[in-house]
Amino acid sequence: MTRVYNFSAGPAVLPEPVLQQAAAEMLDYKGTGMSVMEMSHRSKAFQGILDAAEADLRDLMGIPANYKVLFLQGGASTQFAAIPMNLMGGGVADYIVSGSWSKKAFKEAQRYGRANCLASSEDGNFSYVPAMDSIKVSSDADYVYICQNETIYGTLYHQLPETGTVPLVADVSSCFLSEPIDVARYGVIYGGVQKNVGPAGLAIAIVRDDLISDEVLECTPTMLKWKTAADNGSMYNTPPCWAIYISGLVFQWLKDQGGLTAMAERNRRKAAVLYDFLDQSQLFEGTARKEDRSLMNVPFITGDADLDAKFIAEAADHGIQNIKGHRSVGGMRASIYNAMPEEGVKALVDFMAAFEKENA
Amino acid sequence: MTRVYNFSAGPAVLPEPVLQQAAAEMLDYKGTGMSVMEMSHRSKAFQGILDAAEADLRDLMGIPANYKVLFLQGGASTQFAAIPMNLMGGGVADYIVSGSWSKKAFKEAQRYGRANCLASSEDGNFSYVPAMDSIKVSSDADYVYICQNETIYGTLYHQLPETGTVPLVADVSSCFLSEPIDVARYGVIYGGVQKNVGPAGLAIAIVRDDLISDEVLECTPTMLKWKTAADNGSMYNTPPCWAIYISGLVFQWLKDQGGLTAMAERNRRKAAVLYDFLDQSQLFEGTARKEDRSLMNVPFITGDADLDAKFIAEAADHGIQNIKGHRSVGGMRASIYNAMPEEGVKALVDFMAAFEKENA
Repeated sequence: MTRVYNFSAGPAVLPEPVLQQAAAEMLDYKGTGMSVMEMSHRSKAFQGILDAAEADLRDLMGIPANYKVLFLQGGASTQFAAIPMNLMGGGVADYIVSGSWSKKAFKEAQRYGRANCLASSEDGNFSYVPAMDSIKVSSDADYVYICQNETIYGTLYHQLPETGTVPLVADVSSCFLSEPIDVARYGVIYGGVQKNVGPAGLAIAIVRDDLISDEVLECTPTMLKWKTAADNGSMYNTPPCWAIYISGLVFQWLKDQGGLTAMAERNRRKAAVLYDFLDQSQLFEGTARKEDRSLMNVPFITGDADLDAKFIAEAADHGIQNIKGHRSVGGMRASIYNAMPEEGVKALVDFMAAFEKENA
Repeated sequence: MTRVYNFSAGPAVLPEPVLQQAAAEMLDYKGTGMSVMEMSHRSKAFQGILDAAEADLRDLMGIPANYKVLFLQGGASTQFAAIPMNLMGGGVADYIVSGSWSKKAFKEAQRYGRANCLASSEDGNFSYVPAMDSIKVSSDADYVYICQNETIYGTLYHQLPETGTVPLVADVSSCFLSEPIDVARYGVIYGGVQKNVGPAGLAIAIVRDDLISDEVLECTPTMLKWKTAADNGSMYNTPPCWAIYISGLVFQWLKDQGGLTAMAERNRRKAAVLYDFLDQSQLFEGTARKEDRSLMNVPFITGDADLDAKFIAEAADHGIQNIKGHRSVGGMRASIYNAMPEEGVKALVDFMAAFEKENA
């Protein structure tokens, strides 16, 4: 068995100890005589898994008691509709469009009310995050929406918009648990887990109590109403048990690593190795504006599509996998999530240096 | 490691060879150097998994070419809304209510148009399936809805309603792949996979081409529109990759067992062992009407709640797990899905006989 360095943007690399534990428990989870996949979601064993996952997540992120943690299905894309359905009672919402994902969310919201685009960086091919000091939140907005880390363009909000009493809703899919955040600054923090947390098929929403109610848009499916999940401990129907189990193991692993402060340090160190190389390279160039760079997704190019293709192919031969940029932008992208070891980033940079020498 | 006989109604027992393969491939799927959970859904390896799963399912069920297979999230409960959203363009639908699940689907549909209850067996605590010969489909109905096997009450439609040109929509969650069916009799066949197919977190819908269109109810979330999944090969966003992978392994296992004809024979044999015992028992009694009995879910009682509790507790000590009836009805329920070996059913009946002797 040879493991590769997997730079996929998601689904993405998971901690090896988590995979080993999952394999070891596959036929008999802790003496229950069955796999987690075979377990009734109403069983004590599974309730224990769910409760531990929630407690560990609360602990890791410092989630205040007045926030609910919801385990959901359908990915962030389903929440693009659920968010206006749950929050747009006043019919107005503000969106900041900093990439493909916030743009998709914005478009979906327009179907349910008056969604305003407060600012957009589409004019610069989403290579930057719009300036926060020029953001003016609508006085009648039900919420302000951002995608905090745009996976495709490799940008991160290093500063949040000032929204006053208007709740801030943030898609954190690709920066989930990458560093400590102040949960109280947000009304809703949510994301698919398949980038930095666990396997595809689970979305987590952390929602402030007062934003969960029966007063949703009339056509809201029962399953998309957050109150349905909140009132039923995320088990109105069968939840994605396996994805919750694996995510829970990742939470434990994160705690073993020292929690989010330690992860943030490691993530900054890892990102610096790659960005420092890019900044001195004569061949490679990072595409995101420096001050908006993501810690998790690092897109770069040579400026020559053929050379990009050659790099991607040769990298794969060196055990550096899934380094190709998103099909919508081309070039390369290294996703260096929590579970990517520092050696992986060093191996990538070493290979980039060798490739640059050869192709100078 | 001791495996138990797991009679859970879902999530439920999976074939042991499938679990073994999943454990063996956990850190390195077929030389890719990564787990299926870590794999980009846009990778060739995952596309291969998805394509094989669909091809094997088509083969097993004999799905005609004019039906699409959609891999979805959110369980059957999300489809309770998606079905009217996708099909109720004319504003009218007929429902047959034969248990909790069809009742829930009926209630959700009432929120989106005029949903008629054609027949109900609620007067008999859902112990039977309404008579098919008295069913009169509304001439203006967009579809007729049934839940083909009601998991909680252990009933199965042994005959389908005659719906003429009106499409029949069937929730088959708890009888999925339990025996061959004539797909062409249905407009939509769908279900959560967590009972008879795979792990929780995946729903499969088999939908006739002409029922998939952009003409959905106006408020339909993009992710609930079947055309979104159909146009994007079930990958508009990241699908529940792991659940698709495991379901695919189960499809292969079913083919290895001889396909659905062989499974149906085995399932009838297994069910007969249990029903024959119940029919001669002086202590235990099956609760579903004989002619409507499910092959998959067998609810039974002693008529004495304390004795039921004693039976459930002692059964657990004998490695017979999750035999408790649904919290809404009490008593016992043995779910004997495809992956429950014949020895499991025999062990249950042997234990029931011994218990009856002791507690006569």
